[in-house]
Amino acid sequence: MHFALQHTDKNTKARAGLLVTDHGEIRTPAFMPVGTLATVKSLLPRDVWDTGARMCLANAYHLYLRPGTAIVREAGGLHKFANWAGSILTDSGGYQIYSLSDLRKITDDGVKFKSHLDGSPHYFTPEKVIEIERDLGPDIMMVLDECPASNSEYSIVETAVNRTIDWAQRAMEHVEKTQPLHGYAQAPFLIVQGGVHRGLRERCAEQLVRMNSSGYAIGGLAVGEPNEVMYEVTNWVTDVLPAEKPRYLMGVGTPVDLLESIARGVDMFDCVLPTRNARNGQLFTSGGKLNMRNAKWRNDFSLIDDSTTSYASQNFTKAYLAHLFNADEILGLTLATMHNIAFYEQLVIDARERILDGSFETWKNMFIRKYNQDDKTGIKAEGILA
Amino acid sequence: MHFALQHTDKNTKARAGLLVTDHGEIRTPAFMPVGTLATVKSLLPRDVWDTGARMCLANAYHLYLRPGTAIVREAGGLHKFANWAGSILTDSGGYQIYSLSDLRKITDDGVKFKSHLDGSPHYFTPEKVIEIERDLGPDIMMVLDECPASNSEYSIVETAVNRTIDWAQRAMEHVEKTQPLHGYAQAPFLIVQGGVHRGLRERCAEQLVRMNSSGYAIGGLAVGEPNEVMYEVTNWVTDVLPAEKPRYLMGVGTPVDLLESIARGVDMFDCVLPTRNARNGQLFTSGGKLNMRNAKWRNDFSLIDDSTTSYASQNFTKAYLAHLFNADEILGLTLATMHNIAFYEQLVIDARERILDGSFETWKNMFIRKYNQDDKTGIKAEGILA
Repeated sequence: MHFALQHTDKNTKARAGLLVTDHGEIRTPAFMPVGTLATVKSLLPRDVWDTGARMCLANAYHLYLRPGTAIVREAGGLHKFANWAGSILTDSGGYQIYSLSDLRKITDDGVKFKSHLDGSPHYFTPEKVIEIERDLGPDIMMVLDECPASNSEYSIVETAVNRTIDWAQRAMEHVEKTQPLHGYAQAPFLIVQGGVHRGLRERCAEQLVRMNSSGYAIGGLAVGEPNEVMYEVTNWVTDVLPAEKPRYLMGVGTPVDLLESIARGVDMFDCVLPTRNARNGQLFTSGGKLNMRNAKWRNDFSLIDDSTTSYASQNFTKAYLAHLFNADEILGLTLATMHNIAFYEQLVIDARERILDGSFETWKNMFIRKYNQDDKTGIKAEGILA
Repeated sequence: MHFALQHTDKNTKARAGLLVTDHGEIRTPAFMPVGTLATVKSLLPRDVWDTGARMCLANAYHLYLRPGTAIVREAGGLHKFANWAGSILTDSGGYQIYSLSDLRKITDDGVKFKSHLDGSPHYFTPEKVIEIERDLGPDIMMVLDECPASNSEYSIVETAVNRTIDWAQRAMEHVEKTQPLHGYAQAPFLIVQGGVHRGLRERCAEQLVRMNSSGYAIGGLAVGEPNEVMYEVTNWVTDVLPAEKPRYLMGVGTPVDLLESIARGVDMFDCVLPTRNARNGQLFTSGGKLNMRNAKWRNDFSLIDDSTTSYASQNFTKAYLAHLFNADEILGLTLATMHNIAFYEQLVIDARERILDGSFETWKNMFIRKYNQDDKTGIKAEGILA
């Protein structure tokens, strides 16, 4: 994996770059659609490609349970299994495991947990996660970290940071000891934890940077803290991370969150918002969020979003989409998902162009003002997720 | 609408033809995927096109209830509403209304019924159905007929035949009195009823033929009678129908039913089998039916069906499809639907080529023997539907 930083904005910390894996080029800033179980829900791989996405996220924990790592390994890895020609990053699934609260137990060695599907017992260590990811074959392997609850007291977060650093070291050593199985390179990314505590965040980032990983992620954000806090923590961390490595803000966020985080030096994003909200009938458009289950769209024959260029946006009306949602037709989920991902992909490509031509800050502020002004639903995106 | 009969088989009554509407050419024998609510469930219109289908079926009764005929009219008709570049045939929905048993009442004038959605009262006459179809704008408009239950006694079937003939006459007169609304021609098709009674079927067909419609359908079959009876009734009716008009066997059927009916002179088919069964995990393949919910496919890395040429069949393995069904992923429904329709479309195209080169009968018998032999599920397709 190679990352070339092409341009850094003069007024903000925004960056334009090019990430190159054995499965192709990804222009950054980049948004990765979420394909937890080796499928971006309701989309054919060729439809994901059409949105402009070139890297998708999958989840090692979920795939370990279903269909099982042996099956994906035997299939030749995730790309072949899911017929995805672009790149893939797998999250370790640590975040999902920690959400299991009473089904898991963490020690310095690893984490014991019970499957959310059938209650069967399992045990993950940093080494085990690397082995799973060797089987699955993503281009980028996220290491196992510890992500404490957002309301944890300082000492808990401190312990999690120490463990995250120790586990990162163990994961890096295990990467060295093992080999890719599917004929292409796999790069590890380390994850900065530390909650909302500047000292912990900076120390964690500094320690991880010494391990000279291919890239760095910021974890443990978008877990309930105010947006401004999230932006500030991001800013602290990107100040420590090396310029020549890609930075990935995990699980973030709304269109506004993406732009504010790009301004603070983030290169990569993933989030369930465009896909999950699509399945609830919510569209992200240049005119704000629209709820297709609202009866007022049933005789609106304008395009879904005439300023987003995608097959879904350019070929179907709000009236048709409202009909599909009203009749519980699967195609409604598909079209809304296609549109929302295309909207996110266009957003990061627009941001990239503005970074390259020097107008990013002005454009970002105008976009956010218009987007918030035009928002037709009054529903906070976070409210939909909760 | 124009129909050109290109070749009739020497050994059977099988025909190859070309149906031309203002939305393009349809080679016959043809299979029309079912898109009841202006969507072939789970498929983008471009994916339907990719299967080879050039005419879809929609349902006037269902669309009249949702989204309502006014909305489809205002959208510019079904083709624009659903963004389908090919041709469309609408069934009247009479069959669906008669299935409402205690929610409907038939007189010589028309049929009163209550919506299956909200119990609201409605009234359809032959004229009203033509008006709905003018609003919806299909290329082919099926007229309102009466389809009695399969176990009805002779006098009930006789009354239904008389009413079907009378209603066909009224519908034809109303077609003359009205105009297409969307800038292209619409052709009426009349429907032959008569249950399993040869005299009634022949009289009904003779009377309808005198009305000189653009095409003729055979209704009231595949409602529970044995396959051999269905084939025989079809044979009686196609003996009466004029050679120069297309014949459409409504709601039929399995791959074997299609071939046996093509051999008896049928040109057009529609059926929910490939789409509905796909959503239950059942694939129609050249090696018989396969149930993707069966655990044995989870580590079978062969293609879905290497003898069907479609995006779904050529790019995804049984293991991946089994994973999607096991994890209740929407993409499983989409891929199975794409494959099954492509399989049906390839079947009728293969039949057409064999009719043109004179080898239809031999090929048909071989196909049926192999298909029945290789059937892996032991589930009758009809059993899945019931």
